[in-house]
Amino acid sequence: MRALPEGRVLTDPDVVDSYARDRTFVEPGKPLGVVLAASRDDVVATLRWASEHRVPVVPRGAGTGLAGASTAGDGSVVLSLHRMTAIKELSPADEIAVVEPGVITADLDRAAREHGLMYAPDPSSYEISTIGGNLATNAGGLRCVKYGVTRDSALGLEVVLADGRILQTGRRTMKGVTGYDLTGLFVGSEGTLGVITSATVRLRRAPAVPPATFAAEFGSLRDAGAAVAAIMAAGCQPSLMELLDRATLEAIDDWRNIGLEPGTNAMLIGQSDAADGQVVAERMERLCVDNGASFVAVSSSPQETEELIGVRRMAYDAKERLGACLVEDVCVPRSVLPDMITAIEAAAARHDVKICTVAHAGDGNLHPVFIFERGLPEPPANVWAAADDVFTHALELGGTLTGEHGVGVLKRRWLALESGPVAQEVQQGIKAVFDPLGILNPGKAI
Amino acid sequence: MRALPEGRVLTDPDVVDSYARDRTFVEPGKPLGVVLAASRDDVVATLRWASEHRVPVVPRGAGTGLAGASTAGDGSVVLSLHRMTAIKELSPADEIAVVEPGVITADLDRAAREHGLMYAPDPSSYEISTIGGNLATNAGGLRCVKYGVTRDSALGLEVVLADGRILQTGRRTMKGVTGYDLTGLFVGSEGTLGVITSATVRLRRAPAVPPATFAAEFGSLRDAGAAVAAIMAAGCQPSLMELLDRATLEAIDDWRNIGLEPGTNAMLIGQSDAADGQVVAERMERLCVDNGASFVAVSSSPQETEELIGVRRMAYDAKERLGACLVEDVCVPRSVLPDMITAIEAAAARHDVKICTVAHAGDGNLHPVFIFERGLPEPPANVWAAADDVFTHALELGGTLTGEHGVGVLKRRWLALESGPVAQEVQQGIKAVFDPLGILNPGKAI
Ligand SMILES: Cc1cc2nc3c(=O)[nH]c(=O)nc-3n(C[C@H](O)[C@H](O)[C@H](O)COP(=O)(O)OP(=O)(O)OC[C@H]3O[C@@H](n4cnc5c(N)ncnc54)[C@H](O)[C@@H]3O)c2cc1C
Ligand SMILES: Cc1cc2nc3c(=O)[nH]c(=O)nc-3n(C[C@H](O)[C@H](O)[C@H](O)COP(=O)(O)OP(=O)(O)OC[C@H]3O[C@@H](n4cnc5c(N)ncnc54)[C@H](O)[C@@H]3O)c2cc1C
Repeated sequence: MRALPEGRVLTDPDVVDSYARDRTFVEPGKPLGVVLAASRDDVVATLRWASEHRVPVVPRGAGTGLAGASTAGDGSVVLSLHRMTAIKELSPADEIAVVEPGVITADLDRAAREHGLMYAPDPSSYEISTIGGNLATNAGGLRCVKYGVTRDSALGLEVVLADGRILQTGRRTMKGVTGYDLTGLFVGSEGTLGVITSATVRLRRAPAVPPATFAAEFGSLRDAGAAVAAIMAAGCQPSLMELLDRATLEAIDDWRNIGLEPGTNAMLIGQSDAADGQVVAERMERLCVDNGASFVAVSSSPQETEELIGVRRMAYDAKERLGACLVEDVCVPRSVLPDMITAIEAAAARHDVKICTVAHAGDGNLHPVFIFERGLPEPPANVWAAADDVFTHALELGGTLTGEHGVGVLKRRWLALESGPVAQEVQQGIKAVFDPLGILNPGKAI
Repeated sequence: MRALPEGRVLTDPDVVDSYARDRTFVEPGKPLGVVLAASRDDVVATLRWASEHRVPVVPRGAGTGLAGASTAGDGSVVLSLHRMTAIKELSPADEIAVVEPGVITADLDRAAREHGLMYAPDPSSYEISTIGGNLATNAGGLRCVKYGVTRDSALGLEVVLADGRILQTGRRTMKGVTGYDLTGLFVGSEGTLGVITSATVRLRRAPAVPPATFAAEFGSLRDAGAAVAAIMAAGCQPSLMELLDRATLEAIDDWRNIGLEPGTNAMLIGQSDAADGQVVAERMERLCVDNGASFVAVSSSPQETEELIGVRRMAYDAKERLGACLVEDVCVPRSVLPDMITAIEAAAARHDVKICTVAHAGDGNLHPVFIFERGLPEPPANVWAAADDVFTHALELGGTLTGEHGVGVLKRRWLALESGPVAQEVQQGIKAVFDPLGILNPGKAI
């Protein structure tokens, strides 16, 4: 590792261990060390060295992943990009930015807002996750019900391949069809095809007025799911549509006392950032009432709105207080959202597992979080059995195993159910084109 | 070819020749025959047979392509999908449709409209092109300035690979990140990786009110380009923003007499389909005046709107009356649209070539059409020299060779300028994964 610039390599075992984990319970191995890349050249040097010595490399952004995708194994090197934080260009006229991979998601958004623009993809983790990590997982977020996922904001990439060659993909223009869509191939590839060292991303006009926000409470989760389906079918185009179940609300209430009513089994929070947002929010409110909401309110002040969205953003931390978490991420066609909710409830009951569910409901993307005893090396059998039920059901309903968190290591055992042998074969073939030695994040994603 | 069902194979030389051409001047070779596939099984049988006998296969939709991508060479087989026209499913609740590849683009849109939905991607050719062809070229269109290109509406595909294996890609859900993005890889691959036999596409809510439309006339193209840049930068989010130059307007006027004024050197047609579309259209109108428009008008009736859009849709046919056409398709960052327009004008003057330009201006996507003498086997040297100038300039401005028509055979000689050797190498590698014998549309796209 002497090929690397001095001071960029960490080998202290405790420090290395902290870079070998993500936000899951997955236990890492013992990596050789961590490279803190400060430039593309550092990335090239690391990958050349790793290729020469056949050392596995685990690219890493902020390590906020929920699929074990950046956990590092024995004898590997963690290649951390989080020091590469330059916003190299921000063009209001072309509505694009060119950024290094370590830029924190919310920092890019804030920089864009100074020009009346925004960076749309906003995973709940946006204050801590990196753009590189978002690209490598094709992260979704709260706003993506209206503005799409990270893929929809990625125009072009600079990628260092496993052997150190530099690949430019895509473009700076809004459209372009020269050659195969390599940009799309890297987005969501979880660090298995190359290391992203620069990205050209699309910005969008920030809405001129603050969004109009409503909240609705329901006696049953199914009713809330039906309200979501009705709102989407009515063409309301919400810019946010989040669902929280009773277990999640209780966890938040226990922690922060939000005055949860006994009969409330689900809460829906929605926004419209359209020019006539207030009208749309009231329309969404009415559709909630039509679908059995026990309480609805349109927010009357920015502060109230902040509080409502704050409740949603607290969900993950509140659940972590309950125990170890297996965070799942199924996505189903919107019309069967109520059925999927019923299936999750049934799985919890059948296997006696505590499941708290939040959902990017407008996309049909549910996060059932399975709570289990802290300190166990992995989730107990009944948790896996319940997860298995949930996955099987999602696939039966025409859904997918993962809407936005990725496959990582945690979902690999179910992959074959969704992808089938031909898809798996061609994916292995593609992997071999980019990384013939198999040194890039082995054992992940495919 | 006896493996194929009877009556599905055409071998009459004249008929075969008509299936061997697209809408370019590219002269085809002499294919062995044409298979009119009626089902996926026909596609599988054709590809198995072709693999066994190492016969090149040229997939074909409606043959409306403008890059020579579906022209067929000596000894190949044309595999026409245009008989596979079933809309297999249309789910208003999930806002998706599942269709066979031969469905005509506008037919799908009409079917969706019956449910208050639309199929957004609308190439000018939408009454004659197929969904399969649109997917294989990642077609753009008039509405894509607001709703994105074909890629943005493609959720999942069924593809038959070169050896006859069937691959399912993607999903029915709005989001999903299981495995690499194979759907995106096939979109825009111009029939070189596999044959699309079914597609799950996203529909969108059709706007509730008819769009508000404006037209503006300018003394110079550059001014019109500046107006476009101003409109986009003001966040007007037009649902259509088309630019026509003097030469195009003259061609239309000669044919259909639209009362073209002497001083008019450019026309801009724009629409907003927002809830407050009328207000937005007036705002766009004002920005045109601010940028030097000599005449502006907001359309006052659906009939007037039809006429305005009709002018745009006539552009291609009007130009074909002038001679043979080399239709180009550069796309540049929006802010440099005026510079690109100047460069096109300079190239026309320098090489003494007639160039008529229309543009999907809101995307920075320009179609300079180079007119040359009919009956020539290929464009004369001065046309290629002018095209070369245009391409070089587009790339210098941070643009791309092709915004939506694809590479086909016509743009291959410039590919290396844009893509660079590493990208070309990995693309060849990917091609080999899907089509190791190289039988699928050889010599195209990459
Ligand atoms: C509280 C909380 C809320 C969350 N909410 C959401 C949410 O709403 N939506 C959502 O999608 N996710 C969410 N996540 C998951 C996570 O934040 C995202 O997956 C995020 O995109 C990961 O970014 P990261 O920088 O932390 O990447 P890491 O976790 O470090 O890495 C993730 C993957 O990307 C790869 N990678 C990272 N950088 C690069 C690079 N430069 N080049 C190549 N590969 C790279 C890694 O190898 C790994 O495979 C949440 C997580 C938490 C803890
Ligand atoms: C008047 C006119 C206006 C046009 N306007 C536009 C426009 O606004 N925007 C735009 O993008 N294009 C436009 N075009 C170009 C053309 O219509 C598009 O490229 C269209 O997508 C081609 O569709 P097609 O069915 O005719 O495909 P074809 O021309 O038959 O084939 C195009 C490519 O797709 C491949 N292909 C076709 N079907 C399949 C399949 N099922 N599986 C795999 N590969 C397949 C072929 O091999 C070929 O490489 C225009 C053309 C004309 C003549």
